[in-house]
Amino acid sequence: MSGLVLRKKSKRRGHKSAFWNANVPAFDEVLQKSLGKNPWNWLACIPLALLIVGVWGVAAHAQDEAITPDNVQAVLDNIWITVAAVLVIFMNAGFGMLETGFCRQKNAVNILSKNLIVFALATLAYWAIGFSLMYGSGGNGWIGGGGWFLSSSEPATYGLGESNLTIPVSFLFQVAFAATAATIVSGAVAERIKFIDFIIFSLLLTGISYPITGHWVWAGGWLSELGFSDFAGSTVVHSVGGWAALMGAAFLGPRIGKYQDGHVNAIPGHSMTVAMLGCLILWIGWFGFNPGSELAASLNVPYIAVTTNLAAAAGGVAATCTAWALNGKPDLSMIINGILAGLVGITAGCAGVGYWGAVIIGLIAGIIVVFSVAFFDSIKIDDPVGAISVHLVCGVWGTFAVGLFDLESGLFFGGGVGQLGAQIIGILSIGLFTVIAASIFWLALKATLGLRVTPEEELKGLDIAEHGMEAYSGFLKDTSDMGTL
Amino acid sequence: MSGLVLRKKSKRRGHKSAFWNANVPAFDEVLQKSLGKNPWNWLACIPLALLIVGVWGVAAHAQDEAITPDNVQAVLDNIWITVAAVLVIFMNAGFGMLETGFCRQKNAVNILSKNLIVFALATLAYWAIGFSLMYGSGGNGWIGGGGWFLSSSEPATYGLGESNLTIPVSFLFQVAFAATAATIVSGAVAERIKFIDFIIFSLLLTGISYPITGHWVWAGGWLSELGFSDFAGSTVVHSVGGWAALMGAAFLGPRIGKYQDGHVNAIPGHSMTVAMLGCLILWIGWFGFNPGSELAASLNVPYIAVTTNLAAAAGGVAATCTAWALNGKPDLSMIINGILAGLVGITAGCAGVGYWGAVIIGLIAGIIVVFSVAFFDSIKIDDPVGAISVHLVCGVWGTFAVGLFDLESGLFFGGGVGQLGAQIIGILSIGLFTVIAASIFWLALKATLGLRVTPEEELKGLDIAEHGMEAYSGFLKDTSDMGTL
Amino acid sequence: MSGLVLRKKSKRRGHKSAFWNANVPAFDEVLQKSLGKNPWNWLACIPLALLIVGVWGVAAHAQDEAITPDNVQAVLDNIWITVAAVLVIFMNAGFGMLETGFCRQKNAVNILSKNLIVFALATLAYWAIGFSLMYGSGGNGWIGGGGWFLSSSEPATYGLGESNLTIPVSFLFQVAFAATAATIVSGAVAERIKFIDFIIFSLLLTGISYPITGHWVWAGGWLSELGFSDFAGSTVVHSVGGWAALMGAAFLGPRIGKYQDGHVNAIPGHSMTVAMLGCLILWIGWFGFNPGSELAASLNVPYIAVTTNLAAAAGGVAATCTAWALNGKPDLSMIINGILAGLVGITAGCAGVGYWGAVIIGLIAGIIVVFSVAFFDSIKIDDPVGAISVHLVCGVWGTFAVGLFDLESGLFFGGGVGQLGAQIIGILSIGLFTVIAASIFWLALKATLGLRVTPEEELKGLDIAEHGMEAYSGFLKDTSDMGTL
Repeated sequence: MSGLVLRKKSKRRGHKSAFWNANVPAFDEVLQKSLGKNPWNWLACIPLALLIVGVWGVAAHAQDEAITPDNVQAVLDNIWITVAAVLVIFMNAGFGMLETGFCRQKNAVNILSKNLIVFALATLAYWAIGFSLMYGSGGNGWIGGGGWFLSSSEPATYGLGESNLTIPVSFLFQVAFAATAATIVSGAVAERIKFIDFIIFSLLLTGISYPITGHWVWAGGWLSELGFSDFAGSTVVHSVGGWAALMGAAFLGPRIGKYQDGHVNAIPGHSMTVAMLGCLILWIGWFGFNPGSELAASLNVPYIAVTTNLAAAAGGVAATCTAWALNGKPDLSMIINGILAGLVGITAGCAGVGYWGAVIIGLIAGIIVVFSVAFFDSIKIDDPVGAISVHLVCGVWGTFAVGLFDLESGLFFGGGVGQLGAQIIGILSIGLFTVIAASIFWLALKATLGLRVTPEEELKGLDIAEHGMEAYSGFLKDTSDMGTL
Repeated sequence: MSGLVLRKKSKRRGHKSAFWNANVPAFDEVLQKSLGKNPWNWLACIPLALLIVGVWGVAAHAQDEAITPDNVQAVLDNIWITVAAVLVIFMNAGFGMLETGFCRQKNAVNILSKNLIVFALATLAYWAIGFSLMYGSGGNGWIGGGGWFLSSSEPATYGLGESNLTIPVSFLFQVAFAATAATIVSGAVAERIKFIDFIIFSLLLTGISYPITGHWVWAGGWLSELGFSDFAGSTVVHSVGGWAALMGAAFLGPRIGKYQDGHVNAIPGHSMTVAMLGCLILWIGWFGFNPGSELAASLNVPYIAVTTNLAAAAGGVAATCTAWALNGKPDLSMIINGILAGLVGITAGCAGVGYWGAVIIGLIAGIIVVFSVAFFDSIKIDDPVGAISVHLVCGVWGTFAVGLFDLESGLFFGGGVGQLGAQIIGILSIGLFTVIAASIFWLALKATLGLRVTPEEELKGLDIAEHGMEAYSGFLKDTSDMGTL
Repeated sequence: MSGLVLRKKSKRRGHKSAFWNANVPAFDEVLQKSLGKNPWNWLACIPLALLIVGVWGVAAHAQDEAITPDNVQAVLDNIWITVAAVLVIFMNAGFGMLETGFCRQKNAVNILSKNLIVFALATLAYWAIGFSLMYGSGGNGWIGGGGWFLSSSEPATYGLGESNLTIPVSFLFQVAFAATAATIVSGAVAERIKFIDFIIFSLLLTGISYPITGHWVWAGGWLSELGFSDFAGSTVVHSVGGWAALMGAAFLGPRIGKYQDGHVNAIPGHSMTVAMLGCLILWIGWFGFNPGSELAASLNVPYIAVTTNLAAAAGGVAATCTAWALNGKPDLSMIINGILAGLVGITAGCAGVGYWGAVIIGLIAGIIVVFSVAFFDSIKIDDPVGAISVHLVCGVWGTFAVGLFDLESGLFFGGGVGQLGAQIIGILSIGLFTVIAASIFWLALKATLGLRVTPEEELKGLDIAEHGMEAYSGFLKDTSDMGTL
């Protein structure tokens, strides 16, 4: 046992190492030298900052007096954004439940699989190239670059030079956003797309397309220079996911039996319970999405949470009333989509509009979503969960609404039409790019793998066809929709 | 493109604007003037504080040296209460799953709809008038007022003059509590109430009745002057919801088939899985509810979390053992209700009792709830989910228990009977007011809209009757309870 | 009403009491004296610290100038660990949904009951003795002791002498970990164990066995002296739960029909939807589990979150590809178990390995878990949810991997074999102890109560047999697996 290293009492580092002096110049060199002979040393270069923290932590006890208000605030910023990132990551469960509940039980395993693996895929793709393409400072106004695979320990590499946020927390928060864009697609293409196509498309969207348009707005790119404003991503995240979803649904075509003899046939979901749970999880997650986009712990955070909540409430009530008035019944799926519409709508302006502005934005989003669902059915774009109406249409509305309701620059508040112009340019340019990129991806997949399962597989359900298992073993089901063509 | 405003690089504000000087006297006037010619200017008056933050943020870079321990603490207070509010809002999912799981599948859409829309309604009602009626400083010991629609940016308007909490965070946390009271009602009146009645009742409860009694206790009203103590709302939230639920269940009458020929017929819920999930979500949410009621980030917070957890554990174990002893089987619905009973019970005393006190309070709550469920059945008050037993009975018990176990003022700790007297007066006065208010609301609804669906609709299920959809399309169901009368 | 005490306006303490001077020597004596005549006074001794906070809070207004960066950091540490504890406690919902979904509907109530009551039981057992056996400073390198029932208010009693963490927050975080170990067992013994046996075993595991081995590593015990490193519990929590699960599954024997005529019969779970939800809740919960194990709010926290997330992603993708390659289909249960395998694998090394190390650890865990599930079936250890493969096998792998990938001491980073040796000794010694302790517990239960329900009860389902209720009333089920023997 003599060969065993003697280490500090517990690997759990105590609070004493919480603060550390980042200026440890000699350590870097020592590390480089000591690892120089090791063929794995390239691995060590990546999390250099951590190493310094970890090893120096022990030696740092004498530095306890270095606890200043500034570094407490820095830690608080990082902790808050970590918590916000966790809330956003939880949205994967929200989307998973929402989309699964809105689809048929024979396709549940397929949708669950897509929504689960998509965050894993997004994590790896965004780690490898997406984060660098979006925030890497080695690019220009159109595309970022450098620091691939989080290989740099220099915050400025990822545009964090003047921020209290560490590289890891910035990555964690941003990767959760990237995954959201991909998850939106999942719902619109559900019940007929091949599993492998969705996987590859998700990698391309989160690794390439989403980061590029995101760079334009959130990393000092040309749209931000122009004054385009999208605080938490009505356009950058939601309409990007929505455009990709629209193209996917268009190229796939509608599900068998959806549009027959000029009728639009409702294909009811198999569990409104999990759909409603999904909606509430998303609502919760949005309190990370919007207030976290402050990218710091500040007194603005709860304000953003309140505008977010008011818009969600207004959207839910407006959609309920609209659907009730139109159809004579309060439709649960419209309450759900109304709330989500309000949330998507307020995402761009949550930090800049007033309470009344938030309510009006949400209210209009809730009305829009009801008519939008009917509209896409009328043009035979089959979107099983309403993702295009919620994320694309209300994402566009919310981005546009910044130009009207922003307390600083909105048309209704004396800001003139300048902001509105920037918003329209941003909506159109990001939409155009995403439509083109998504079309290339979808058409390439169609040409090589084929996008759609066979009609037989679709009727039988994708769970058996694609995954060889069913979601609800032990229950008796209505198999009338599994009949022959 | 020349008309476009040039703005700072990104609308995402960096951390540099986290701290700001609230004393910006001139800005207010400038704003009033610049917006004076705009017909929408009344909208701008609302979120004045934000405006100051936002616009001044850019100019505030020179103030970076102003980061003091006091303002870091203020930010920490606001961030923690935001997180706590999110946990409390998550309880809507908990109640939704709990109540839906405990009811029949033919009424699932209806319960889900109620539990989803109720938070939207509560948000709007509490924003418009509830928050002001409860915390508005322009009132007296019986009712608050002023600052409607969050129109004031002066913290003192909402009793926050000496607090680090901003107006938005206070509103967010309190509206989540208001919604809880309404959600409690949902379960007790389930499976037979008309959807529209529940909507209107929720607006009245969260907008008027709950804020008034809440004002008495938490906003310096007459009960707080008297010494009544309810730290996080055993009475203010839970028994208020419980009284309203009791009156609703009484006016509605029992579900068809519940009490027949002198028998109490069990009507089993349709998904114990989602009910159990709901219970655990509520347990989690209570870590926002109770520790968040500290209304600050302090070293008390984890202490409150531990008393809360001990009482929940004791309640769960006690109810399990009690039901096991009585019925010979460990009944899952009693494990669930026992945990919730413990949580409701400790809510009043969580910050003031010791660990043993918390365990005893939870233990007794867990025993009480088993007998209480049987008691209400014996008097033919039909409460499908046990909400009255959990929230009313254990809420009363928990409030009473403060007078016994409070380490400062409890009878068992040498505090005499003074605290106990105040507790009893508080329980009775708030109960009386709520019973009267709820009765007026219910009876007015009964006289105008009618409270109850028709027997045909009840048998068919409220999902089809009220919403025109079913919750679990694609599954085969046992329709024996949908038969004729 | 003259007898009523007059108290401060609201029991809700404002932020002004957040900071308090812990040096209040006289109060302790005053309290002892004033309570001396009361037979309940032993209760009062427990939360002395709180009392000081509470009572002194009012008097502490004059101390507002005492807000220093150090005490803001201390509050931040406590708030963050409270939030992390809540995330870990949420994992109970994750395990509950995962295990329930993977089992048959006829046993759902039973599994739900076990997973719900286990956290209540763990709370009480760990409060009474577990926390003291693990962290009590009145012991030696093999076992802790002292301060039972959280009876001490002196942080040093629980090894917190130099920590910013309060006793309550340390207890809350650690009890959540203890419960996790017990919950792991639940899945492996599902569908055939008697409810009472699981209850007693959980009390013994969380109250005695888990704390002892935990003491060796995390409380300065002999393994920590040796240099054994397990940052967040791949071994201390997961493999301990896994070993206990393995012995339980072995003593119980397989479910009826699992292994017949040399075949391994798949027994599909009844809800992949709730299983997938469980997986995502666990993923979220792990962001409390691993980053919270830093035991402080520091800049390390998000780094740990990122390594955790990368390993989860790599595990999920690796298991998906492996199962897809082997079976021709992407199996959702393998996506789920791959993600969990990655999470368990990274738990030991999350703070010490680099990003690439995390990805490789997760990747290998994801591959291992697929083969491990097949292996245990081949030796007829029936584990309905794959808990042994995920938690034991990948827990061992993750602990071993620290010796390879740790940037400070790992073999691949020039650290030699010393760390690896310590890891192997730790894995074996904790495994051996847990196998012996669990075997004693299981065999004692078998000899007294019997471990297993009767074959008739097993066929009928444990829900009816053990709990007298069914999980999904109102749905028609396939009862072919409830037939005669």
